[in-house]
Amino acid sequence: MASTADNAPTEHKGTTPFNEPTIAELPITDEEIFMAHVGGKLSVELRSPIDTQRDLSIAYTPGVAQVSRAIDNETHLVNKYTWTDRLVAVVSDGSAVLGLGDIGPRASLPVMEGKSALFRTFAGLNSIPIVLDTKDPDEIVETLIRLRPSFGAINLEDISAPRCFEIERRVIEALDCPVMHDDQHGTAIVVLAALKGAMKLQDRDISTLKVVISGAGAAGVACANILLAAGVTDIVVLDSKGIVSFHRDDLNETKQELAERTNPRSLGGGAAEALDGADVFLGVSAGKIDESLIASMADDSIVFALSNPDPEIHPTVAGKYAAIVATGRSDFPNQINNVLAFPGVFKGALDAGARRITERMKIAAAEAILSVVGDELQADRIVPSPLDKRVAPAVAEAVAEAARAEGVA
Amino acid sequence: MASTADNAPTEHKGTTPFNEPTIAELPITDEEIFMAHVGGKLSVELRSPIDTQRDLSIAYTPGVAQVSRAIDNETHLVNKYTWTDRLVAVVSDGSAVLGLGDIGPRASLPVMEGKSALFRTFAGLNSIPIVLDTKDPDEIVETLIRLRPSFGAINLEDISAPRCFEIERRVIEALDCPVMHDDQHGTAIVVLAALKGAMKLQDRDISTLKVVISGAGAAGVACANILLAAGVTDIVVLDSKGIVSFHRDDLNETKQELAERTNPRSLGGGAAEALDGADVFLGVSAGKIDESLIASMADDSIVFALSNPDPEIHPTVAGKYAAIVATGRSDFPNQINNVLAFPGVFKGALDAGARRITERMKIAAAEAILSVVGDELQADRIVPSPLDKRVAPAVAEAVAEAARAEGVA
Repeated sequence: MASTADNAPTEHKGTTPFNEPTIAELPITDEEIFMAHVGGKLSVELRSPIDTQRDLSIAYTPGVAQVSRAIDNETHLVNKYTWTDRLVAVVSDGSAVLGLGDIGPRASLPVMEGKSALFRTFAGLNSIPIVLDTKDPDEIVETLIRLRPSFGAINLEDISAPRCFEIERRVIEALDCPVMHDDQHGTAIVVLAALKGAMKLQDRDISTLKVVISGAGAAGVACANILLAAGVTDIVVLDSKGIVSFHRDDLNETKQELAERTNPRSLGGGAAEALDGADVFLGVSAGKIDESLIASMADDSIVFALSNPDPEIHPTVAGKYAAIVATGRSDFPNQINNVLAFPGVFKGALDAGARRITERMKIAAAEAILSVVGDELQADRIVPSPLDKRVAPAVAEAVAEAARAEGVA
Repeated sequence: MASTADNAPTEHKGTTPFNEPTIAELPITDEEIFMAHVGGKLSVELRSPIDTQRDLSIAYTPGVAQVSRAIDNETHLVNKYTWTDRLVAVVSDGSAVLGLGDIGPRASLPVMEGKSALFRTFAGLNSIPIVLDTKDPDEIVETLIRLRPSFGAINLEDISAPRCFEIERRVIEALDCPVMHDDQHGTAIVVLAALKGAMKLQDRDISTLKVVISGAGAAGVACANILLAAGVTDIVVLDSKGIVSFHRDDLNETKQELAERTNPRSLGGGAAEALDGADVFLGVSAGKIDESLIASMADDSIVFALSNPDPEIHPTVAGKYAAIVATGRSDFPNQINNVLAFPGVFKGALDAGARRITERMKIAAAEAILSVVGDELQADRIVPSPLDKRVAPAVAEAVAEAARAEGVA
């Protein structure tokens, strides 16, 4: 264990340099970003053109009445003759957007359009953004119940903790379709895949790790849960007040539950105490972490600094100390991005006709992500590229198989 | 006036035969209709592909955060950098679908997908179906208020009367964007265009007409309103119990209002009394009308039998007596179909940045529709073909101009 009580930065312990962005070409300018967003990123198109009177008579009146009549007689036919059964609604109230916080439904829309674009690109799924002008959990749940016939699945997105836990639980209970809060489980799935990749590379067992999770929000809680389920035994969770511990009297219900299952060494204090000698730093908050604290971690340390758009510590800096560094950004290696999970998870769930997305399906998704890396596993390649078109089909197949095995299909 | 007290069919008075559908090719089979609907009629596509790391960094993290930040600072930028400002939600509860009645939200979906397909085809607008699992007006209005940031306009569709009047009024009051119940105003606009076309062809003045409207639902009420506004003085409205008249004590509030402004000759009775000597029959109900009653109308009579998919009287039969016959079907001439109005009306309103769709904008739309027919006006061509790509741009231009003139833009 590399103790650095003086907090002086120590030498680079990693095997790979992280000092250069992967994009060597011209940097992306604001102008380029805004130009690419004019008019939005999505369009609704016809699957067959309406050019002739005959087309119109089939797609609209009088022909369409036959299809409506048939569905009226046999409701399940709606799944065959409309898009609804495989349409994913990307639903947000804009209360926790990227690392930007509560910027509201309108400002969240570019992100939701981006998600819908990724559903199409990687899973071939239709998807539409639905942003809600309410932050009341009762109203959000009620609204989605009323909208139920419009969609086949719901990707909850960028909803702040702890509201997101209650909202997701209640929407899952109320609707008989795949529902997943991606900020929780999408992140957790890819983090598990990446950590399994790192373990394989370092030939270590996940149960021996000291893991520090910075952030007790949506992603932090879900990561803690999936890592505990996967065999991690020593997790210390940090929130803005320090280590989440049952000694504290300011914890909400979610954090009280966390405190019962984490911090086995009963640490007190904050980031310095948590990170001293730790093996894994997992940042899923908008906070920053000082270079000296990363330097205080154990040998062969692993740093996942996932806050978007600004990582908790710059990957170039983290790379001075850590053996493996990952971020949430697409312009550095090892992008731990939900895009590796959610398209395939929803596709698999919908392919199997699953009414739920279970823990077993999520773990199957993590294993499928890692399987795509295969023999190319190395310190700057513990997860596949987010652009790797093999990932979503592999995840979908694994998720669908898990759904069928579990009988939720 | 051709009085036919004995109700015996009289000779053909029209100038054009209506005894053949316009589609001479093979009839459309059920199989063809259902095959065309497998998987639905719409897809959500990307406006620019995500192929490279650079694309991903622009459309998703970290680039998208810049756009969200900008909208957070200046809300109006959401109109420039997302699709929302020009996205039309086609909203229904499935309570009055075509002529099929209350078949529910799921069975209504093929119709809503068809509407969205027509918005794309004729106005180049993005549009998505939103079907609601509630028929409660309070809940429908409340849901649309919550969904407001997701859309730029709302096309209410296939909502039953009299609920539709209250729902439309309340949604218009609550939301600062174009809202129109198409079954009311889309139909009314095209009926007015067609009647103006017929008047021009017959060199008659609209103020001299005796008009019978069969149906006091969404379309019937809106047609009565627009025709009265356009100068028709003698309208008799029929509902399932007979002529709507202030002598009756079974009228709801909407019909009481109608009774005050129609039936100037204080007729009693039903369809026979109303149609005897009438100039125009306008059918906007699911009911049937007997051949003998059409025979009892005045010379040069005009029959618009618009119920879908089954007209109140078959156009071939009506054509034996009437000078001009129109239906709502795409497989007969003179299709009085809302598709001539709604794409252009919404495009014009959105082009002008209008916050309302006013009566003046609707009348401008009707005149624009007729203007496209131009010199080709004849008994079997009183409205343009629904496939005429010139209509929506002409309507949009007229509607946008009216909006600007009226100061709602």
